[in-house]
Amino acid sequence: MIMKKGLLIVVGFLCAATGFSQDKDSVMIKKIVDEVMTNANAYSNLRILCKQVGQRISGSDNYNKAVALTSKMLKEAGADTVYLQECMVPHWVRGKKEKGEIILTGGKKYGLHLTALGNSVGTPANGISAKVIEIRSMAELEKMKTEIKGKIVFFNFRMDPTNINTFRSYGQSGVSRTHGPSLAAKHGAVGALVRSLAINLNDIPHTGVTVYNDSFPKIPAVAISTNDAEYLSKELKKGSGTKAWFSTDCKTLPDAKAHNVVGEIRGSEFPEEIITVGGHLDSWDLAEGANDDGSGVMQSIEVLRAIKALGIEPKRTVRAVMFANEENGGRGGEAYLNEAKSSNEKHIFALESDAGGFTPRSFGFSATSEQFNKVIAWKDLFYPYGVYEFSKGGGGSDIGPLREIGTALAGLQPDSQRYFDIHHATTDVFENVSERELNLGAANMAALIYLVSEYGM
Amino acid sequence: MIMKKGLLIVVGFLCAATGFSQDKDSVMIKKIVDEVMTNANAYSNLRILCKQVGQRISGSDNYNKAVALTSKMLKEAGADTVYLQECMVPHWVRGKKEKGEIILTGGKKYGLHLTALGNSVGTPANGISAKVIEIRSMAELEKMKTEIKGKIVFFNFRMDPTNINTFRSYGQSGVSRTHGPSLAAKHGAVGALVRSLAINLNDIPHTGVTVYNDSFPKIPAVAISTNDAEYLSKELKKGSGTKAWFSTDCKTLPDAKAHNVVGEIRGSEFPEEIITVGGHLDSWDLAEGANDDGSGVMQSIEVLRAIKALGIEPKRTVRAVMFANEENGGRGGEAYLNEAKSSNEKHIFALESDAGGFTPRSFGFSATSEQFNKVIAWKDLFYPYGVYEFSKGGGGSDIGPLREIGTALAGLQPDSQRYFDIHHATTDVFENVSERELNLGAANMAALIYLVSEYGM
Repeated sequence: MIMKKGLLIVVGFLCAATGFSQDKDSVMIKKIVDEVMTNANAYSNLRILCKQVGQRISGSDNYNKAVALTSKMLKEAGADTVYLQECMVPHWVRGKKEKGEIILTGGKKYGLHLTALGNSVGTPANGISAKVIEIRSMAELEKMKTEIKGKIVFFNFRMDPTNINTFRSYGQSGVSRTHGPSLAAKHGAVGALVRSLAINLNDIPHTGVTVYNDSFPKIPAVAISTNDAEYLSKELKKGSGTKAWFSTDCKTLPDAKAHNVVGEIRGSEFPEEIITVGGHLDSWDLAEGANDDGSGVMQSIEVLRAIKALGIEPKRTVRAVMFANEENGGRGGEAYLNEAKSSNEKHIFALESDAGGFTPRSFGFSATSEQFNKVIAWKDLFYPYGVYEFSKGGGGSDIGPLREIGTALAGLQPDSQRYFDIHHATTDVFENVSERELNLGAANMAALIYLVSEYGM
Repeated sequence: MIMKKGLLIVVGFLCAATGFSQDKDSVMIKKIVDEVMTNANAYSNLRILCKQVGQRISGSDNYNKAVALTSKMLKEAGADTVYLQECMVPHWVRGKKEKGEIILTGGKKYGLHLTALGNSVGTPANGISAKVIEIRSMAELEKMKTEIKGKIVFFNFRMDPTNINTFRSYGQSGVSRTHGPSLAAKHGAVGALVRSLAINLNDIPHTGVTVYNDSFPKIPAVAISTNDAEYLSKELKKGSGTKAWFSTDCKTLPDAKAHNVVGEIRGSEFPEEIITVGGHLDSWDLAEGANDDGSGVMQSIEVLRAIKALGIEPKRTVRAVMFANEENGGRGGEAYLNEAKSSNEKHIFALESDAGGFTPRSFGFSATSEQFNKVIAWKDLFYPYGVYEFSKGGGGSDIGPLREIGTALAGLQPDSQRYFDIHHATTDVFENVSERELNLGAANMAALIYLVSEYGM
């Protein structure tokens, strides 16, 4: 028996209320987990994606290669149907040259470890140079606005190390990257240095999207490493003469054609009820996007493979979806919603994995109270496999648009301690994924998809 | 509030029964966790141990260097007293040459990735050579005993990938390494090839101790990589002509002097009641012993540092102990018990971390029902920090001897998915430890030690 003694009465009651059979389901979920932990090819598929394709930023040739590769993998996994959904995506390119330095009051120079933020404009050919002003909060930015004109603004937002869920810290500090440069431009800044959104201290800069407000000038923006941010902050405390120079030649080309990849097992009883499980296929251009989000893609394909391998005929239609353009536009998610609407599809549930291929801990749900009450009754089925929490709130940016048509959403929430060490950086490579952690996430996802396919939502 | 709504009534009741104040404690535990997640030096200390000392097998000069280094670290952490406890330890040395191959029926040779098991005797200078026989269970060994004479026994015990707690699989298959060679010798085998105790497939062999039964000849025993085990098994299925040859020159020298390192903060109210937190300082000789058990050592020192940094004056005496010789003898743990007995010390509680510096999930307790009921009331205080389970059974091999004098024991149980990828292998290096995971383990350990120091056991 998988449940703890004290919970038996409660669970028994919930079973009666929701009509599912704890025993039968726990046996089936054990089969699913055993199948995934023994025979999954998520890890070997991820190696192929990372090493044979590698980075796959929206608009790149590599993205198209990844589409072809994962289409093939979905067929091999046993999807009845595999097809593509077209969408137009932003096509930002980094270019070759990225360099910068700070120039201390006495003239001493210190080379920066930097990388342009996605969507940033490039600098003029000889770069930009200006005095640096440090900003530690958005309130401070507003207070110091008169001093900002003509300067390079250094957003030194440290990610709070005391949040055990590191995504909370990312949410708190992320505005420095997403909106900081444009808000600085509003007050006349000429450029932005943004402290990388990482908690650990090292020399590796982390990219990620910045969003320009069209009302203000578009100024060049780069991320600097956390070590550089600490150093620069220390130097600025000594006096206000510190300057920075940096040069980038990134630019945005006309929108490019891209595709979502969809693999489907048609439901045996209620084929019109669609269940989606997915991750995003695009990555940033600095590395292999192994954890962000090769892992979610391969886990989603594995869900289909495990269902087929066990001979399960899901009552409802199960779709694994590789979304386009999560990182800098979200056009894949929009296209998926638009197709759902124009085809009048009935999307009952969607599950996303886009928080890294780490050991799973919980699922978060964006759903009605009635739906949440239904799934919470399943929670203890997952306890033996490391998922001990079903929380309210969760999903993912690719499936998020489906809320518009009332779809219940869920997100896999793996342990988040290591995620921001590698997020959007050169270190997001295959070698930083654990096979068993990846598979355990896929196993829990497959179990949840199975339950929804049996009992609906 | 850190607890879930539904539990409030139950927890309230338990508080009344055990006399602790959930509110005050949750505030203090938050302070402890924040301190560790913000200011811990467990990770930088671990880097020093791994990179400045490295491997530190019992009896080696490096072990003595690690004693000096951690003594210094304990003083810097703020221990009132730091002292050593002497013990005599086995002194096994690997020697230089380890090589081997299998020779297929047609004469084709295949080089093996192998490493001698700890405690193994070496081969004659020109190695040993014999036909290979594969054994997949101890029952099979007994059944095939007449066929074993004169052969090299290949213990091909696969670790079961379906146990989510990988230590369970280690427990199931571990007998192949610890007792297999001697049991094979009982039936006349001349050597043993033992499949590495790892779940993933690669070319890296994992060492670990084998235990000889003095009633039988001591035959040379090596671990081979999981890839090699798969290959060898496949070849053996084709016919019985496959031979193996291997050569090692490991040997056991006379026992050497070694020390436990003890750092203590004396209790302010009940100094005679001793609480131990520890890990083992020795490692296997193949790598840095970063996860096994540099991480447990540094977490234990961090517990002391955090207590001092926060100005906590623990009511009971808290000791961080770096145990000698866990890997191949357990003499450090024995010496600790002997000292406790001869000094008539009152050891109320001991906590060990020796399952890797991975993200924490639970604590396991070996204690009386009364003691377990006392600690289980604290469980929800840990939930916000990733520890959601207090289970019965647990501790560690270094603190295990203290059961003889009635000490309640506990073991930190971190996520186990990655542990056996690196356990006892060349890959157990600093780079495979995550700073935040290590710290989060230390934070939970510090919280538990704090509660015991306040409320006793």
